[in-house]
Amino acid sequence: MTHTDTDTDPTTTRRAGLGGAAAGADAALATGLPAAAHAADTRRSEARRPGRGPRIGVVLYDGFSLLDPTGPVEVLSRLPGAEITMVAERRGPVRTDTGHTAVVADRSFAETGRLDVVLVPGAGNRGTVAAMENPAILRFLRRAHRRTRFTTSVCTGSLVLGAAGLLGTRATTYWASKDYLQTTFGVTYVPERYVHDGKVITAAGVSAGVDMSLYLAALLTDELTARAVQLAVEYDPRPPYDSGNAAEADPELKELALRLLEKSQR
Amino acid sequence: MTHTDTDTDPTTTRRAGLGGAAAGADAALATGLPAAAHAADTRRSEARRPGRGPRIGVVLYDGFSLLDPTGPVEVLSRLPGAEITMVAERRGPVRTDTGHTAVVADRSFAETGRLDVVLVPGAGNRGTVAAMENPAILRFLRRAHRRTRFTTSVCTGSLVLGAAGLLGTRATTYWASKDYLQTTFGVTYVPERYVHDGKVITAAGVSAGVDMSLYLAALLTDELTARAVQLAVEYDPRPPYDSGNAAEADPELKELALRLLEKSQR
Repeated sequence: MTHTDTDTDPTTTRRAGLGGAAAGADAALATGLPAAAHAADTRRSEARRPGRGPRIGVVLYDGFSLLDPTGPVEVLSRLPGAEITMVAERRGPVRTDTGHTAVVADRSFAETGRLDVVLVPGAGNRGTVAAMENPAILRFLRRAHRRTRFTTSVCTGSLVLGAAGLLGTRATTYWASKDYLQTTFGVTYVPERYVHDGKVITAAGVSAGVDMSLYLAALLTDELTARAVQLAVEYDPRPPYDSGNAAEADPELKELALRLLEKSQR
Repeated sequence: MTHTDTDTDPTTTRRAGLGGAAAGADAALATGLPAAAHAADTRRSEARRPGRGPRIGVVLYDGFSLLDPTGPVEVLSRLPGAEITMVAERRGPVRTDTGHTAVVADRSFAETGRLDVVLVPGAGNRGTVAAMENPAILRFLRRAHRRTRFTTSVCTGSLVLGAAGLLGTRATTYWASKDYLQTTFGVTYVPERYVHDGKVITAAGVSAGVDMSLYLAALLTDELTARAVQLAVEYDPRPPYDSGNAAEADPELKELALRLLEKSQR
């Protein structure tokens, strides 16, 4: 393998060349993975930095939609000192709506203390309904909400907030669930990427969590930091199509979208 | 809790009301979570549908950036019959660059057969360098590449492809790694969200995986399906700021972005 500078330790050179500011530090970490079965999941406690940034709890529950929590976590994890914990009814892996993977919850609800931010992802029908009817989830959300600075959701996660009695008068949700939101909770559906009502911030479907989390990042820190985070994750979206907005979609496309969703979800 | 229709089974009504086409089916799944410790991670094998869609392998390695693989998986998991597997050197949870969570690899490289698509995510400096120097990862990629329809990457994942000798003459990568890409692999850096060169498709940093995966979705199926998937994940991006493009960013913002990244990564 070639190196850009043969006079320096190749690992350091590589790290310097990659463009990050980490050049020269921790070169030894790049080699020597341990042989244990779960070697790749280095213990979280070893890596716990002092924090003093926002304490963010991201709820996971069976059948959640993968991008709902992971988009926001990618963004918010870049805030200085951010302490982000994936939380669930029990510790351990929580599988997504399609079943293709699972994301690990490091803490149970019972082990989770005061949060500055709580985030509830959405799910397919099965997962959302189950969450809306899960007393442990609802109890945790109500408890967390008493002390959060912001209570947030992505996609049908706003319906779970609704089930917990935490919505205000305006909110958004997954586009196909807007009537349900209004009818069930008496909340006005707002067709925006995210809606900020009191201390509750709800986001539209799935990918809207990224937009919402940049907005939230600015509230938690400042606009300059949020812009820097946007650049850090190179969030300069240029989708190849412009079919992401339900209000502009014809009925056939909406039907196909929902059919694809249904077939993909367990 | 209120229901929209008291004459019907409330779970079915809820599911119907949510707007999906799954109303009436699998109502029993919405209740009765088992009490086992990892109850939320229902066994993947129970859910394996017949497939016959694209077989997609998504590589995970220690220190990867969370959104790199999860954005594409959210999109591609909606393709009819898609068989998506998160693969790694060993089965089990693989922790991200910030350490805030782990994503589960269901299969090891050794257990992974022919793939239509392989996707390599990026990582911070530490994770990227380790992956570039990991013989198991490089061997797996070369083996997979011999039979893929498309070999793809997000962010610094293209550097791992480069280390495996799989890049062509044009590619993209994370914005801060463009010089390294060109210098190390003699590849022309193209400042686009994604670059398609031969059967290799590389994407820019982190969030670019979503754009790239919609493009890939159309190649694997057709444009109509890709548009429907875009609607299914409500991908109508409207970030609150326009700072995601490095070419338009001033040096101070770039420096802050890289500093935030470095501080957030273990």
